Amino acid sequence: MTHFVLDERLAGDSLPLGASELSLLRLMDNALVPWLILVPKVDCRELYELGPDDQTRLLAEINALSRFLHAEFAPDKLNVAAIGNLVPQLHIHLVARRRDDFCWPGVVWGRPEREPYTPAEAARIRALVAARLAPGFTAYGADV
Amino acid sequence: MTHFVLDERLAGDSLPLGASELSLLRLMDNALVPWLILVPKVDCRELYELGPDDQTRLLAEINALSRFLHAEFAPDKLNVAAIGNLVPQLHIHLVARRRDDFCWPGVVWGRPEREPYTPAEAARIRALVAARLAPGFTAYGADV
Repeated sequence: MTHFVLDERLAGDSLPLGASELSLLRLMDNALVPWLILVPKVDCRELYELGPDDQTRLLAEINALSRFLHAEFAPDKLNVAAIGNLVPQLHIHLVARRRDDFCWPGVVWGRPEREPYTPAEAARIRALVAARLAPGFTAYGADV
Repeated sequence: MTHFVLDERLAGDSLPLGASELSLLRLMDNALVPWLILVPKVDCRELYELGPDDQTRLLAEINALSRFLHAEFAPDKLNVAAIGNLVPQLHIHLVARRRDDFCWPGVVWGRPEREPYTPAEAARIRALVAARLAPGFTAYGADV
């Protein structure tokens, strides 16, 4: 775990939000839709390759993040997915979809539309993480 | 559970493969890519709404199906996703992706390409389910 390095493409496409014991929590840098990326700090590519304890932990984190998205963004549907065709490092997408969002009912993956967050918007979401996801997740300061 | 009815659109797009105590197992009727659909026989729309016992069971089923796809189809990457923008009934996609498949590295959802299975191909996959996924899943006979 100490030598875990976030994939460069994931790092470039997303902003740091926080971390748990198991995972990094990132915000896809696209204000068009609330889109979290959960990255377990493990060396495997597929969900089923995770050890049973890490699987249980990851499931609990997915539950917590799903409830968070549901409470804060009132989605019509959550999209939860492990894909990884472009970035093989294991990561879970959690996307809060709404019927009036930019590509409903299509999926967000592969869409070119992008609107980077303003610093104020990103800070607001980081503050929500700090307020709602502790103690499971520790939010990063706005300077990270 | 006794009154569970499979969503009409899911039923129309996929073929019956088998069932577990918790779920129906379907084969997306598209021979372009190995694509399973797992449908827990529950009345909820989101993964996090499942009770903890059903979540644990579903995770075990996803693991078993992932190993099955890995062993039988040698994918370069599995795509595992709960989306449901078009069909809100909770269902999990498990797709065995290969670098030479019809839409790599894009995702399969929303793509128009479709090649229905021949009865012989569908029977072959049902036989694989019967041979490899018992006793967790019971395969349907070819006449279902």
